[in-house]
Amino acid sequence: MFSPLIEDLIRALRCLPGVGPKSAQRMAMYLLEKDRDAAGLLASSLQQAVEKVGRCGQCRTLTEQDICSLCTNTRRDHSLLCVVETPADVLAIEQAGNYHGLYFVLHGHLSPIDGVGPADLGLDRLGERLGAQGEEGIRELIVATNPTVEGEATAQFIAERARAKGVTVTRIAHGVPIGGELEYIDGGTLAHAFNSRTVL
Amino acid sequence: MFSPLIEDLIRALRCLPGVGPKSAQRMAMYLLEKDRDAAGLLASSLQQAVEKVGRCGQCRTLTEQDICSLCTNTRRDHSLLCVVETPADVLAIEQAGNYHGLYFVLHGHLSPIDGVGPADLGLDRLGERLGAQGEEGIRELIVATNPTVEGEATAQFIAERARAKGVTVTRIAHGVPIGGELEYIDGGTLAHAFNSRTVL
Repeated sequence: MFSPLIEDLIRALRCLPGVGPKSAQRMAMYLLEKDRDAAGLLASSLQQAVEKVGRCGQCRTLTEQDICSLCTNTRRDHSLLCVVETPADVLAIEQAGNYHGLYFVLHGHLSPIDGVGPADLGLDRLGERLGAQGEEGIRELIVATNPTVEGEATAQFIAERARAKGVTVTRIAHGVPIGGELEYIDGGTLAHAFNSRTVL
Repeated sequence: MFSPLIEDLIRALRCLPGVGPKSAQRMAMYLLEKDRDAAGLLASSLQQAVEKVGRCGQCRTLTEQDICSLCTNTRRDHSLLCVVETPADVLAIEQAGNYHGLYFVLHGHLSPIDGVGPADLGLDRLGERLGAQGEEGIRELIVATNPTVEGEATAQFIAERARAKGVTVTRIAHGVPIGGELEYIDGGTLAHAFNSRTVL
């Protein structure tokens, strides 16, 4: 119905998560009708990011630098290492604001059925870092993978390897979210909260 | 928190309608983590569209051709002309499937407060088309601007000009949508539906 280039654009916009045919059409019309400057800027930002953004050589988070700004920050505690599944998790923890150590990003979780093994998650590199001694040594490994079946399996796998190297391994607490109402919490979370209760 | 290129990308994605900071972040992460091919394709589609898509020389809809495929289609009724506010309206009418005439896209409506006058809407070109005689002549002008205050004012303005040139002017019907339930229809629409009732 639209001309080929516009149809191409609508199809390309549908690759965005949460964008269906109607939203894609609305976005295409908006960009072409109202804001071509923004569309041009978006095109070049995308091109730049796709070409230049890679992974930090140390923590594997997304960055266009060789080593990301978190890893090179000397004011952070380099003896603490937090393992997360995605770069978005790093952001979430940074926004919470009370953790000042370093990160290690897995970019996923162990999933044999999808062919994702330890090597894909960079666990050999994580092993090297945990084995480092002296200045470079890691005092505590905090495992913050998601509390899903795969996330838990990945956490167990990493914990075993780290303990074998003599590093303290901890897991972030799971339970009722702060401000949450018991009435609306699912049974699995509540059961976990009871099992993991602490002495007051 | 993210590296500069990723921050740029997130900011650029926020120009899309309906995309806030969280969605933009999710989109950026998705494109960089999961689907770089799609991101590259989106970048080039956007670039192409921004560079090449202009307006049809005859109906002013968005197209990369000089004259769009609707205007050059000889199987359509060239004596019927439907005036709409946006290219998306053309698509909506085409999808309804019972109109086979041509279109004229205003790209907005008269809005003196925003400095949008008849020239911005291409009404001089519309006037020329309405004035054409013989083969090129328009038999009926169907005004399908939105039933808003500005849309109605624009419809009146266009109707007066067209009538002065001896062209029949019609307005699409407004009332209770087909399949709609009276209970949920707003008062303004219901009042209009009563005022515009037809003999059964």
